[in-house]
Amino acid sequence: MTEDVRMERDTFGEIAVPNARLWGAQTQRSLQNFKISTEKQSPELITALAVIKRAAAEVNLGLGVLDEQKARAIMQAADEIIDGKHPGEFPLAVWQTGSGTQTNMNLNEVIANRASELLGGERGEARKVHPNDDVNRGQSSNDVFPTAMHVAAAQAIVKHLLPALKTLRDTLDGKAKAFADVVKIGRTHLQDATPLTLGQEFSGYVAQLEQGIRHVESTLPHLYELAQGGTAVGTGLNAHPKFADSVAAAIGKLTGLPFVSAPNKFEVMAAADALVFAHGALKTVAASLNKIANDIRWLASGPRCGLGELSIPENEPGSSIMPGKVNPTQAEALTMLCAQVFGNDVAVNIGGASGNFELNVFRPMIAHNVLQSVRLLADGAHSFNENCAVGIEANHARIDSLLNESLMLVTALNPHIGYDKAAQIAKKAHKEGTTLKASALALGYVTEQQFDEWVQPKDMVGRTT
Amino acid sequence: MTEDVRMERDTFGEIAVPNARLWGAQTQRSLQNFKISTEKQSPELITALAVIKRAAAEVNLGLGVLDEQKARAIMQAADEIIDGKHPGEFPLAVWQTGSGTQTNMNLNEVIANRASELLGGERGEARKVHPNDDVNRGQSSNDVFPTAMHVAAAQAIVKHLLPALKTLRDTLDGKAKAFADVVKIGRTHLQDATPLTLGQEFSGYVAQLEQGIRHVESTLPHLYELAQGGTAVGTGLNAHPKFADSVAAAIGKLTGLPFVSAPNKFEVMAAADALVFAHGALKTVAASLNKIANDIRWLASGPRCGLGELSIPENEPGSSIMPGKVNPTQAEALTMLCAQVFGNDVAVNIGGASGNFELNVFRPMIAHNVLQSVRLLADGAHSFNENCAVGIEANHARIDSLLNESLMLVTALNPHIGYDKAAQIAKKAHKEGTTLKASALALGYVTEQQFDEWVQPKDMVGRTT
Amino acid sequence: MTEDVRMERDTFGEIAVPNARLWGAQTQRSLQNFKISTEKQSPELITALAVIKRAAAEVNLGLGVLDEQKARAIMQAADEIIDGKHPGEFPLAVWQTGSGTQTNMNLNEVIANRASELLGGERGEARKVHPNDDVNRGQSSNDVFPTAMHVAAAQAIVKHLLPALKTLRDTLDGKAKAFADVVKIGRTHLQDATPLTLGQEFSGYVAQLEQGIRHVESTLPHLYELAQGGTAVGTGLNAHPKFADSVAAAIGKLTGLPFVSAPNKFEVMAAADALVFAHGALKTVAASLNKIANDIRWLASGPRCGLGELSIPENEPGSSIMPGKVNPTQAEALTMLCAQVFGNDVAVNIGGASGNFELNVFRPMIAHNVLQSVRLLADGAHSFNENCAVGIEANHARIDSLLNESLMLVTALNPHIGYDKAAQIAKKAHKEGTTLKASALALGYVTEQQFDEWVQPKDMVGRTT
Amino acid sequence: MTEDVRMERDTFGEIAVPNARLWGAQTQRSLQNFKISTEKQSPELITALAVIKRAAAEVNLGLGVLDEQKARAIMQAADEIIDGKHPGEFPLAVWQTGSGTQTNMNLNEVIANRASELLGGERGEARKVHPNDDVNRGQSSNDVFPTAMHVAAAQAIVKHLLPALKTLRDTLDGKAKAFADVVKIGRTHLQDATPLTLGQEFSGYVAQLEQGIRHVESTLPHLYELAQGGTAVGTGLNAHPKFADSVAAAIGKLTGLPFVSAPNKFEVMAAADALVFAHGALKTVAASLNKIANDIRWLASGPRCGLGELSIPENEPGSSIMPGKVNPTQAEALTMLCAQVFGNDVAVNIGGASGNFELNVFRPMIAHNVLQSVRLLADGAHSFNENCAVGIEANHARIDSLLNESLMLVTALNPHIGYDKAAQIAKKAHKEGTTLKASALALGYVTEQQFDEWVQPKDMVGRTT
Repeated sequence: MTEDVRMERDTFGEIAVPNARLWGAQTQRSLQNFKISTEKQSPELITALAVIKRAAAEVNLGLGVLDEQKARAIMQAADEIIDGKHPGEFPLAVWQTGSGTQTNMNLNEVIANRASELLGGERGEARKVHPNDDVNRGQSSNDVFPTAMHVAAAQAIVKHLLPALKTLRDTLDGKAKAFADVVKIGRTHLQDATPLTLGQEFSGYVAQLEQGIRHVESTLPHLYELAQGGTAVGTGLNAHPKFADSVAAAIGKLTGLPFVSAPNKFEVMAAADALVFAHGALKTVAASLNKIANDIRWLASGPRCGLGELSIPENEPGSSIMPGKVNPTQAEALTMLCAQVFGNDVAVNIGGASGNFELNVFRPMIAHNVLQSVRLLADGAHSFNENCAVGIEANHARIDSLLNESLMLVTALNPHIGYDKAAQIAKKAHKEGTTLKASALALGYVTEQQFDEWVQPKDMVGRTT
Repeated sequence: MTEDVRMERDTFGEIAVPNARLWGAQTQRSLQNFKISTEKQSPELITALAVIKRAAAEVNLGLGVLDEQKARAIMQAADEIIDGKHPGEFPLAVWQTGSGTQTNMNLNEVIANRASELLGGERGEARKVHPNDDVNRGQSSNDVFPTAMHVAAAQAIVKHLLPALKTLRDTLDGKAKAFADVVKIGRTHLQDATPLTLGQEFSGYVAQLEQGIRHVESTLPHLYELAQGGTAVGTGLNAHPKFADSVAAAIGKLTGLPFVSAPNKFEVMAAADALVFAHGALKTVAASLNKIANDIRWLASGPRCGLGELSIPENEPGSSIMPGKVNPTQAEALTMLCAQVFGNDVAVNIGGASGNFELNVFRPMIAHNVLQSVRLLADGAHSFNENCAVGIEANHARIDSLLNESLMLVTALNPHIGYDKAAQIAKKAHKEGTTLKASALALGYVTEQQFDEWVQPKDMVGRTT
Repeated sequence: MTEDVRMERDTFGEIAVPNARLWGAQTQRSLQNFKISTEKQSPELITALAVIKRAAAEVNLGLGVLDEQKARAIMQAADEIIDGKHPGEFPLAVWQTGSGTQTNMNLNEVIANRASELLGGERGEARKVHPNDDVNRGQSSNDVFPTAMHVAAAQAIVKHLLPALKTLRDTLDGKAKAFADVVKIGRTHLQDATPLTLGQEFSGYVAQLEQGIRHVESTLPHLYELAQGGTAVGTGLNAHPKFADSVAAAIGKLTGLPFVSAPNKFEVMAAADALVFAHGALKTVAASLNKIANDIRWLASGPRCGLGELSIPENEPGSSIMPGKVNPTQAEALTMLCAQVFGNDVAVNIGGASGNFELNVFRPMIAHNVLQSVRLLADGAHSFNENCAVGIEANHARIDSLLNESLMLVTALNPHIGYDKAAQIAKKAHKEGTTLKASALALGYVTEQQFDEWVQPKDMVGRTT
Repeated sequence: MTEDVRMERDTFGEIAVPNARLWGAQTQRSLQNFKISTEKQSPELITALAVIKRAAAEVNLGLGVLDEQKARAIMQAADEIIDGKHPGEFPLAVWQTGSGTQTNMNLNEVIANRASELLGGERGEARKVHPNDDVNRGQSSNDVFPTAMHVAAAQAIVKHLLPALKTLRDTLDGKAKAFADVVKIGRTHLQDATPLTLGQEFSGYVAQLEQGIRHVESTLPHLYELAQGGTAVGTGLNAHPKFADSVAAAIGKLTGLPFVSAPNKFEVMAAADALVFAHGALKTVAASLNKIANDIRWLASGPRCGLGELSIPENEPGSSIMPGKVNPTQAEALTMLCAQVFGNDVAVNIGGASGNFELNVFRPMIAHNVLQSVRLLADGAHSFNENCAVGIEANHARIDSLLNESLMLVTALNPHIGYDKAAQIAKKAHKEGTTLKASALALGYVTEQQFDEWVQPKDMVGRTT
């Protein structure tokens, strides 16, 4: 029983393509030649390529170099892809030609066949729209693919990552305000230190995310510079003089983002520095999120034998017999994905450093890692926010009890009884395992009333936000 | 319109599960709580978990702690999973609880429901086999998941990676022998150096792969040590005294690999060192493959303006008008995936270094990266072998022409005319852009016959293989 | 024979310190407790600490909390350190307490002893200036050390790295202009592609450095935010309310850089995100430099058996008998140090992600890596510029010869004789190893005059800069 | 005032060398051309080079190709270097030519000048021993430097790292035995879990180090394979046929390590896989040490507001007023250096992957990182052992108190009163913040005597070591 196929041709000759598929010969050949692992080109990248194809058709129509009927059909086919109507048509592996040519051809072929059908024609050899001459007109994989990487990354960052980070920041800011008066023990070197408020502690997380958002935003201008119009090697050979600027404008209109034509096409095609730098901001956000998630899971450790200062939501069964054992699963997912982002960073760096002459040919790998990192951080921040951060509560009793057991509060007695007596109190308490107050009273250096008046942790937390 | 669902329960209460699915409440809850990116638990890991469940059922049956009917049904259900009959039943993200508990429960639930059906029962609350009490009997996620990681990694290495590396080594060894007499210019610092044979050059690649295979093999003994039997924290609480050894033996029988019960359960549960070290060998193989792929694409660069010493197969259309432009796409895919392996290595290191107390909770992330790296290297080596290495040919004319144009051969004249005259010949040839022979004859230091007799590159390539 | 020592004291008791040394008990203790490898705290960091101590003394004097005589002596002692007059006094390892406390104490002790001597007093226990009460007044290691890291990094970036990058950019820009009319073969996938000018190729490098400079500059605002004033845990306990702002201003005046007091002290003490992000820009610059250096060494490969399009300066003996073998040693140094920067990036990421609660205790390691990376990139760019880039020359004959041998120029015939005949010409030339012109004339599709008129590479390089 | 210099010559012409220095023209030139950062070639590498020079002189003498007087002088000069008598003579940067040629010449020049003096001659141009013809006889930088990397790495691993790891393992093993009966709460996900003994917890660390030692040892065979004899490109051109094996044997005798001549010289010169793999084991050890150090600092956190189960030695002043605040500074140094090793690993990987054709030219960078990592891990393990591990003590009162407060012990009641009643007890205790015992008695499910008899943590820790 043979599969239902049609024969397509490229300069290599005939190749059988499943009839059910819109892709063509070059896609099929890539499928057969690159049976490597399971990672496919990211949906964000496919969408970005469709956006480029749509913009190019529109520009080519305006420049009078593409037949209107064909242009309209191409635009409609591209819109369908953007709308997610052809999810099964982009089967190619990340691990293919390093220029992404085969995925560019995948788009060209699918759009050509689909546009042909929209025009009442067939898919396959007899199609009414040509993948190269029509869909890829004025373009080269060498400028299309870097353009798609910038468009996909910028969109994912602006539309997914930044909102997710802002939401988490807002949640934590709400907590910082809610916890503004909760005085607790500070910890440095994992050791008891002078007190601060839980609100201050959370304000640090908020500030980290604020800065992180700013860092990520600072990488956008370079990402907004597009290679389109550089064609094969950056010289723009065979491209209409107005093509580059017009396409950037059209992409800008389609995406709502301020894309421009890169002032130097050689840089943006031969290197991937905009993405290397963008990932530098992503890994910084990962460092922040890792710190935040770690703090929260440690502060929520216990219920009896850990720090226990926070409660986090219980989202799934922990131990049926063990009440209060709430595994910090959201923090675990978040720290795991931060580790992945640090790994991805290295892959991106190596790829970005490895261009030769007019082209960087580590593109699909770089795209894969950048888009995965954006997705991980966006989804991770969102999931952590929804399933953990919003439900964080202070365990006031435990916080108070630790604070009061702490010996660090002794410093509040210095101005009243002097350093030496204060130190004596602390040493006695430490040695005997008692509270400062008990030790102070036993030594007779203060009265109970004085102790309660003078040892006021809330006076030790300063004015700094 | 409501989806066709059934209500399942866990200690958290009711939750709707699609009726078409064998999974249960805890899997469903994880799906809803961890909507993070697109990476799913690897099929290799799912299979390894099924192997463990099958082995545990068999051992529990033998120990008399599991009803025979249930045990047989569990074993059959596990076999079906191993045989790939339930591909849609394992939908959980890599980014979940760091112990992998939810994926262990996914297996328990699917097997329990499927076993129940095999026994004529239902799926869901009324099932005849219990996910925890029966399928997970004698186990804890904390020992199951590390065991599965070792089983999956060892299997993937032994059954996929090592054969792929050996095949590529054999291919390159065949080339080394075929090219044994092809004398060519050597290159150090990218600069012309003394000659060697193309066979010698390829023998270096063969030796790299030989060593790489040995390195990978040296990581297996630690991977063969299994955590199973450690239960929750490594003490084996609630596990039958014979369980650990028996399960390791049963897994060994099912996989054909010499698994043993880890002599220290605390190490294998609290850390992931065996996998960190195994990935250390994987990244070494990546370094080797990167060097080989890079050499081959450079040696095949051209057709006119590069080095051009090798021809590699043309597998897909390059330029229709530009004959001989064969893009080294297989080398590009291979070097891209090597970069990914270097990135994955960092993620694995961070995860491996981040265990606390009795458990490492970066497990799904580590498993994901290790298994991806194995898959990438195995498939990448295979693809490169089939689609590139087997078809490599020497361009004899180009090799000869470069060798003869080279000035390095002048060293062969030293013993005959002395260093100074030889240097004079080379300098004149360099300055005037002529061949050594022309220069030598013009200077009158040798006759044509002498030059041809004395300057014999094949005498300069030594005896070293 | 006993060394000439004096006895100093800290809360631990007595310890012998070499009399020749200005450091005190805590420095000596750290020396004895941390005999780990050879990496010392960077000179840039020591200078930054001295700047802080000087600024703090000035501010404390102004606030009336430090005796004028002492303050002046501290300022003078700090100035001596800034001027490099005490190079042997800072012997501590990078691998010490993670807060850098011991290095802060090293500064406090050296300055106290030196200030004492300036005031006519002794060094040691009887000194007239106290390391903690006077030199460290209003400060804590926990705010001093992060402040020093920001000051050192910002200074090194602004005063060393950015100028070095700008100089290299200018040199390459000069080359781009000088090579504006040198038409050469383009290369993508290492394969011959359509032509461009050598000036265009270099303009890509210039654009990479332009962007890199911008990226690095975008990391400065966060680095300009100083922790000083946060004291032990960020609350500013025991610090004068005006201390934070005044110190930042004083540091700004001393360094000429716009430092400000961090709006949130908890962030800047508990995390190291500003440095993680700054290193993200450094690694981007490394990716750029790696690409540039690689291109240049490949283009200069040969002299006979490589690409040979560029000549680079010969700075040291290559081969005495082998004229023209110029090893690209500057490119090698540069690519090696780029690899180091990529490695350092990972160390910085791990350190930055690993803060707990109120303090990050991976500080000396982070400082070491960031400052080393800045030094490597600054010195590396400078050395590459001076010893390689300024002396790069185009090998016109080789460039022309490759261009003319290339088959890619056939595309220029398309408009005149059609695609099919043009392809026929190229195929014949490829098969027979002849030039396009010979092939075209042999096939009789063009006259010699037509070929020379139509095949004009300079018309194929476009207008894009 | 001019410095006291002598003029030396190389093929580049004259260059002034400080008279006080034994090095010559090529070293001087490198110093001037590579003013890049502060990292110098490692002493371990200099020593290894001296070992090679000594071995080569001995072998050349035996083969009759080197004058006995010269050979003896070279051997004596090399011995002086090995004995550390010329520490100031090796000033070259890591960042030089990627083959390490300049450092090889540094050795040749210093040994030639010193040997000349030993023979009663001068240093400088009139020396009695020639750097190339005599000291470097039968060698090329291309085979010397890779050989030195293997010799240095193997020596550092065998003589420093492995003993340090074994000592730490022994110390921890002693603790594991001493703590064999200390039952404590287990922790998974940072949450309270079933108990184990402190001895079992430490046994996990011991097992990690055991495995780590084995992993490191498994990398030695590849390191024992030496490139010497391969000369310029691996063919052994100009080397005496017996040179390779004889030198390896001589090096083996000098070092006491089983070095052999590499069976394939092309592999060992064109790649650095042995070092990439060796570093893979080093980073695995770093992962282990990081886990161990982290556990210990967390278990020692407090004194009042952390976990507080362990006491670690106080080695330096913490807080004068705050008794019991012992900062885990040794753990901090150790975790910082582990982060560095993870960073170094990436640099080594990139360098190792980047060889081209007959030579890897990332050698000095790779050597620097490998030798630094070995030094960090060896010294770090030693310092941690001496200053922390040997002094670790169990805080029995705290351990007991946490264990008894824990709710996990309720599982011990299951067999006696059933799961449901046990869960009820735990829930009540959790809700009311009481102990299990109080809750159990209040609910009346057990008598005090039964509780004390049945709830025996020591019965829950199993037999697994």
